Amino acid sequence: MNHANTAIRPVNQDAAALHRSLTVVDGLQYANWDREIFEQLVAAGVSGVHATIVYHETCRETLLRLGEWNRRFDAYPELILPVHEMADIRRAKAEGRVGVFFGAQNCSPIEDDIDLVAIFRRLGLLIMQLTYNNQSLLATGCYETDDTGITRFGREVIREMNRVGMVIDMSHSGERSTLEAIELSARPILISHANPLFFHAAKRNKSERVLRALAESGGLLGLSTYAMHLPGGGDCTLLQFCDMVARTVDLMGIEHVGVGTDLCQKQPTDILTWMRNGRWSRTLDFGEGSAEQPDWPAQPHWFRGATDYPNLTAGLLARGFEAHEIARIMGENWLDFLTAATQASTA
Amino acid sequence: MNHANTAIRPVNQDAAALHRSLTVVDGLQYANWDREIFEQLVAAGVSGVHATIVYHETCRETLLRLGEWNRRFDAYPELILPVHEMADIRRAKAEGRVGVFFGAQNCSPIEDDIDLVAIFRRLGLLIMQLTYNNQSLLATGCYETDDTGITRFGREVIREMNRVGMVIDMSHSGERSTLEAIELSARPILISHANPLFFHAAKRNKSERVLRALAESGGLLGLSTYAMHLPGGGDCTLLQFCDMVARTVDLMGIEHVGVGTDLCQKQPTDILTWMRNGRWSRTLDFGEGSAEQPDWPAQPHWFRGATDYPNLTAGLLARGFEAHEIARIMGENWLDFLTAATQASTA
Repeated sequence: MNHANTAIRPVNQDAAALHRSLTVVDGLQYANWDREIFEQLVAAGVSGVHATIVYHETCRETLLRLGEWNRRFDAYPELILPVHEMADIRRAKAEGRVGVFFGAQNCSPIEDDIDLVAIFRRLGLLIMQLTYNNQSLLATGCYETDDTGITRFGREVIREMNRVGMVIDMSHSGERSTLEAIELSARPILISHANPLFFHAAKRNKSERVLRALAESGGLLGLSTYAMHLPGGGDCTLLQFCDMVARTVDLMGIEHVGVGTDLCQKQPTDILTWMRNGRWSRTLDFGEGSAEQPDWPAQPHWFRGATDYPNLTAGLLARGFEAHEIARIMGENWLDFLTAATQASTA
Repeated sequence: MNHANTAIRPVNQDAAALHRSLTVVDGLQYANWDREIFEQLVAAGVSGVHATIVYHETCRETLLRLGEWNRRFDAYPELILPVHEMADIRRAKAEGRVGVFFGAQNCSPIEDDIDLVAIFRRLGLLIMQLTYNNQSLLATGCYETDDTGITRFGREVIREMNRVGMVIDMSHSGERSTLEAIELSARPILISHANPLFFHAAKRNKSERVLRALAESGGLLGLSTYAMHLPGGGDCTLLQFCDMVARTVDLMGIEHVGVGTDLCQKQPTDILTWMRNGRWSRTLDFGEGSAEQPDWPAQPHWFRGATDYPNLTAGLLARGFEAHEIARIMGENWLDFLTAATQASTA
């Protein structure tokens, strides 16, 4: 079907039943994790979630984050389990739990040491961004004025990530760096949480050129519900969002589109300030916010938190997507992509 | 005097006596330090030396290097002393010792943390390069294909280095980054060890545009004796070198030219390999060398090591420089520059 011309139709299928049948995977969250959030995810039928464990963490600090997750897995075995392979997400679905897999939104864990790529992959870091907004040792972030693409160290690291099966994520990178990463990587890459620029002009959203190259190379885009990535912010409607999904699917192909909500539940303002400033500035940087609006933006009313995943399924159904397409967008694409992308290379 | 047209003249002054009268400062060395080298420096009349303590060292590793130097100061008090202020170099001269001051050839000590600038300055790190060949978090190294100049973090760090009186050194940076550092820095900056491109076309040597901008902003260039920076490598003659000094002085002005020999005495090949590769590559990078010539290049015969500083004075004298000019080049310019540049800013 061509989704651009699909009319909104009355829901002639039980959206809730459809949602319950899906294996839902959220391609990015950064919650202040606790029992309530895990219970919400289970109740909302989410079977897999990509949990960010790094914004600015160094090697040692990343080990702290992994240690904290080990304690959570010990504390809530009835709710969560660690994902070593994608079959663990199927198991989580069958058992009414949530499988958690790890990603870094920065390359800070490997510091200046290429050998740390294999070590963190062994520890379960499946995904790593080459940059987080600023220039990194590997590539250029989307907040820098100019983008020189992938550095000398970056080329080496891409080869190593390909080798060990750690997924390259360019969500916070500049355009040239992203295109070069797609080109240089021998394996498909990821943009785990961003929207198309045509939907909303934000530094973090992606051009059609990038989205086309991503799709052509077998990559995956996770669509974001973060207000800064939506037209009108928190006032963006579910219909607008689902229209954008349809247009993105028409651009990229159904198998290249998933969801990466960028949900950051229960995080205080000082965490947002830390995400934006790390240790790199002595004057406050407001990132996508401003001095007038330094705080977390309000989520759209149809996706206030982990309880609202069924609304996405209902919205896509109302927008005219078929059940098998919704299954892909809501989770199967993530499962297929990660199954292939996290295998160690046999080349 | 205009040095370009100065004829070579017979030495009608006692070069050795002149050399003994000078306060000689070497603007960069990276020796495998031991008693013999310190004795050589003292015998050769060197009163101050900028010792590189960092190529790839992180914060913690830089503290190891500082700790090692504390042990050396304890072990050889009759030969060396730590330089806290430039008066310590005058004292070293008077007492027949060598004053040692510290610099980093990379910004790796501060990792991602701007607050480490003030902390390392307090510990005696007077000089820090913003890059070492590769892209750093602050700027672009001279071995990258493209140079985007100073990054967002880099702008913050330049302001902080200006504030605490840590000197910005762009010896291993790309051209655009160097020009931007000169422009952005409120205080004069340094190129501690490099030669003009007109002397020898090497990635590490500097264009006339850079040298002019450096001089106009009150900066200092330390001329290098490292064979890779010389025409003909180790076969470059003292006369060729001193001709280059004359041409550089004519370009930049006498007060902006010093010596930064880049002498690396007694360092084994594996140290050179580490300098070039750090931890960033799984395939060997040969830097200025090649697979056929992976080892240290031979020094020119007139500057084989620390014993040969008097040859530089003799060469400059023979080339027609006046004694007061030689005094500037051999050390006074370093003393003047560092006296101003390492004061904490009162702004």
